[in-house]
Amino acid sequence: MPRSSIPAELALIGIGAGDPSWVTLEAVAALQSLDVLFVVLKEDELDDLVEARRVVVERHRDKPLRTVELRDPPRPWRTASDYNDAVARWREQRLAQWSSAVASELSDGEVGGFLVWGDPGLFESTLAIVQELIRAAARPLTLRVIPGISCVHALTARFQIPLNRQGRAVQIAPARLLREGIPPGLDDVVVMLDGRQTFAHIHPGGLDIYWGAYLGTDDEILISGDLAEVAERIQGTRAEAISRKGWMFDTYLLRRRLD
Amino acid sequence: MPRSSIPAELALIGIGAGDPSWVTLEAVAALQSLDVLFVVLKEDELDDLVEARRVVVERHRDKPLRTVELRDPPRPWRTASDYNDAVARWREQRLAQWSSAVASELSDGEVGGFLVWGDPGLFESTLAIVQELIRAAARPLTLRVIPGISCVHALTARFQIPLNRQGRAVQIAPARLLREGIPPGLDDVVVMLDGRQTFAHIHPGGLDIYWGAYLGTDDEILISGDLAEVAERIQGTRAEAISRKGWMFDTYLLRRRLD
Ligand SMILES: C[S@@+](CC[C@H](N)C(=O)[O-])C[C@H]1O[C@@H](n2cnc3c(N)ncnc32)[C@H](O)[C@@H]1O
Ligand SMILES: C[S@@+](CC[C@H](N)C(=O)[O-])C[C@H]1O[C@@H](n2cnc3c(N)ncnc32)[C@H](O)[C@@H]1O
Repeated sequence: MPRSSIPAELALIGIGAGDPSWVTLEAVAALQSLDVLFVVLKEDELDDLVEARRVVVERHRDKPLRTVELRDPPRPWRTASDYNDAVARWREQRLAQWSSAVASELSDGEVGGFLVWGDPGLFESTLAIVQELIRAAARPLTLRVIPGISCVHALTARFQIPLNRQGRAVQIAPARLLREGIPPGLDDVVVMLDGRQTFAHIHPGGLDIYWGAYLGTDDEILISGDLAEVAERIQGTRAEAISRKGWMFDTYLLRRRLD
Repeated sequence: MPRSSIPAELALIGIGAGDPSWVTLEAVAALQSLDVLFVVLKEDELDDLVEARRVVVERHRDKPLRTVELRDPPRPWRTASDYNDAVARWREQRLAQWSSAVASELSDGEVGGFLVWGDPGLFESTLAIVQELIRAAARPLTLRVIPGISCVHALTARFQIPLNRQGRAVQIAPARLLREGIPPGLDDVVVMLDGRQTFAHIHPGGLDIYWGAYLGTDDEILISGDLAEVAERIQGTRAEAISRKGWMFDTYLLRRRLD
């Protein structure tokens, strides 16, 4: 089969959620074989995460790598009167931009990559956008998804605790769903995407917390204990770290003590 | 500090849940630096998993590696009249065996490793046993836990699906907890440790299944679709695979369709 009749491939490469050595051998091999890297820059993209991805490329790619930046259009204001329509238009613009970059920069037979923080399946939008792009594309494109070490496994490894207790279930939830407290029947929850210190507004009775910030990086912070006793210390540490670094990435496990 | 006054270290190394290239660079470096590898052989240990771990060592360790086998004592019969006491004694025997192996085979300043399938925090007993061993040891021992690609992330990567849906939670549960059906309010569950085809006994209305067996290996099987339509096919495929290979490792995501 001539190379030009092999469809182009898009590879979503999970790079792990912090430590550059959490990259897998599969991810390294994929990075080595890329023809183009698409670098997604969201409007609120954190410089440190852009830098972390750059470090992964620098360490594991020994030939030059052609790079194409995908800079998200400015997001509509939440207060706009036609907010929903505006978001729909914004999504279309973003898709059109990604599509035209892939159409013009990636030839048949080539592989184009996207580096995804942690694991590509966990609270990430890249996968959905790329799949939409593939459905809408004028030519066939294949997709490959490479798993990565998520912040969930990073958290429990650092605290040296099991994610699930023997014979029990564990939930992974966005903080927004815990604003009213932990749903009944749930004894183990990993909370992500918490911009509001939700842990400090939950009734702490009977709960332990394992809180990790900037896991796997030089700034890693770990605090654990009885939620009633440590919530305030976490709030203080968190506020101090935000004012020092300008951003925060934290996740935590809430675990009900069983007696 | 003289080397002998540095405590010995135990390293739990997550090696990923199938594909040898899911090993991380941190795991490779840890394997390279081990002085001793403790190889745990449970009574029902699967030859293929022993072999998979051997392949990881062979590929990523370039110097010889001293190896110590820890063969679990025979488990008491479930029908024994004093079953609970017998299990307690069995656990003590196992702990005594591991402890004496670590005491005699690992010197101060050395690193002893355990290879753990997938991620060490997910439905694994090694972490708890090693922590008990450390608490009971006559000298200080340090512990290091290295995260790995779990079958949960392997499953969603292979199906190219997100683990969580946007803004929603996901649960990871042992099959035993789903025998009565999916608890109300739960729309996304990853099921593990299913020896009984629990998916086929759950009311399938409105549910999709993403079923993966032997993920990341040459025998990988993927079946997905409306649970009502594919449950029987999965049962058949599963039975055929078990009779061919003699064992089964499967996990699946049940996802309620939202309209
Ligand atoms: C958009 S999600 C991406 C998660 C990523 N795909 C993963 O597998 O970890 C970002 C959220 O993940 C969590 N997170 C990611 N990396 C983290 C880290 N190194 N330390 C603490 N939390 C982290 C935080 O809760 C953050 O708000
Ligand atoms: C004792 S648990 C260990 C899980 C492991 N620590 C991990 O992170 O994936 C074993 C269960 O994990 C699931 N599992 C592990 N590896 C798998 C694979 N390669 N394919 C499918 N299921 C797997 C199965 O449900 C199996 O019963």
